[in-house]
Amino acid sequence: MELLVDPNFAPGRILSEEESAHCVKVMRHRVGDTLFVADGKGNRYECQLVDASPRGCTLNVLSTTVADEPKCHLWMAVAPTKNIDRFEWFVEKAVEIGVSRITPILCAHSERDRVRVDRLEKLVLAAAKQSLKCFLPSVDELTRFADLLASPLPPQRYILHCGENPKPHLFSQANPATDTLILIGPEGDFSAKEIVNAAAAGFQECTLGPERLRTETAALVATNVIAIRNQVDAIPQIS
Amino acid sequence: MELLVDPNFAPGRILSEEESAHCVKVMRHRVGDTLFVADGKGNRYECQLVDASPRGCTLNVLSTTVADEPKCHLWMAVAPTKNIDRFEWFVEKAVEIGVSRITPILCAHSERDRVRVDRLEKLVLAAAKQSLKCFLPSVDELTRFADLLASPLPPQRYILHCGENPKPHLFSQANPATDTLILIGPEGDFSAKEIVNAAAAGFQECTLGPERLRTETAALVATNVIAIRNQVDAIPQIS
Repeated sequence: MELLVDPNFAPGRILSEEESAHCVKVMRHRVGDTLFVADGKGNRYECQLVDASPRGCTLNVLSTTVADEPKCHLWMAVAPTKNIDRFEWFVEKAVEIGVSRITPILCAHSERDRVRVDRLEKLVLAAAKQSLKCFLPSVDELTRFADLLASPLPPQRYILHCGENPKPHLFSQANPATDTLILIGPEGDFSAKEIVNAAAAGFQECTLGPERLRTETAALVATNVIAIRNQVDAIPQIS
Repeated sequence: MELLVDPNFAPGRILSEEESAHCVKVMRHRVGDTLFVADGKGNRYECQLVDASPRGCTLNVLSTTVADEPKCHLWMAVAPTKNIDRFEWFVEKAVEIGVSRITPILCAHSERDRVRVDRLEKLVLAAAKQSLKCFLPSVDELTRFADLLASPLPPQRYILHCGENPKPHLFSQANPATDTLILIGPEGDFSAKEIVNAAAAGFQECTLGPERLRTETAALVATNVIAIRNQVDAIPQIS
């Protein structure tokens, strides 16, 4: 199955220009074809193509499926890498594996202080289509570390850093089915002050194991740890 | 700490041309500097730079550290993706997270029947340096699926595919500290015959959860599942 994703789609609406072009020129759909459109908010529409204009397809909605809200949300706040390709790669993979919100953060040791959110949103859309996601993850503007700590935060919060102090493994700490925010620092890691401030804001320091991981790898491994923790929910809590 | 990796290095040997150039031109080391060289087989040498020739540095070995063999080895056999960048990305990330051997495999539905192993080996070397690995993972030539099944196999073997039949999660099946081989198919998945043949060769069918993952993402998630299973070794077996 292939999926079109248009956040503004609903019965009676014209399909977005981008998805219409994809539908007609890439997927080569013709009038009469049945196709699926998701709005990224949980609704998936089975549609019949009525007008195959690449500027805006007209669709007749045959049926609607409403997906259940996910049991919990994973929010990843990650310092974008100097080489933006690496961060973009993380964004794509995180969408596949499962994430609800991505916030690029600006830290004391950040090597990058600009991010093109529109580019990231396009990547999110493409990855969500490819992996048939019903809910479209959101991407925030670049956010200062202090501003993030001062915003409304979910109950489960972790800061991952490379400091030498002994830290428990994220896997052993994270409870399944719980909204979670994870902080991943830049190439030069979080500053000592950032770690102290995060701890004061209720973030637990954790490790992802003994390997030295790049920023984007650590971010992806953390995303995956939470996904596995949620999938294999019969595992008792250990410390 | 930065690490140089030269599989042929030993006390009395000249550093390889590639690493010598990196040492002198990129890391800008000078005569008298102390630096670390690993041979990728578990030996790490603390050295003093005696002759800083970018064509071949002469080093005086001050001390040798021998790393313990890993408790177990993960062998990933993965069908290379049509777009080789995606496979190369997997190779880099797998080295960071932890893998001992990577075999590109040729399957019935493979979209790619050629791989440049020399390119992959360069990526492995770079990733191993970056993540300070004492043991250099090996990369095989492209191997036919049937030939792989007929070769000597480790005790723990899994085949991951997207078939509809109910399968246990890899995390719940894998025992820690056990040599493991995992098969990941091409974009078009393994053929039914390949799955039957793998089962006959003692491969257990497993899933990585409900998400639809690209080939290279599935390969990386599987690598990470085994890493987490080995790191968090106090978790009891569940089914």
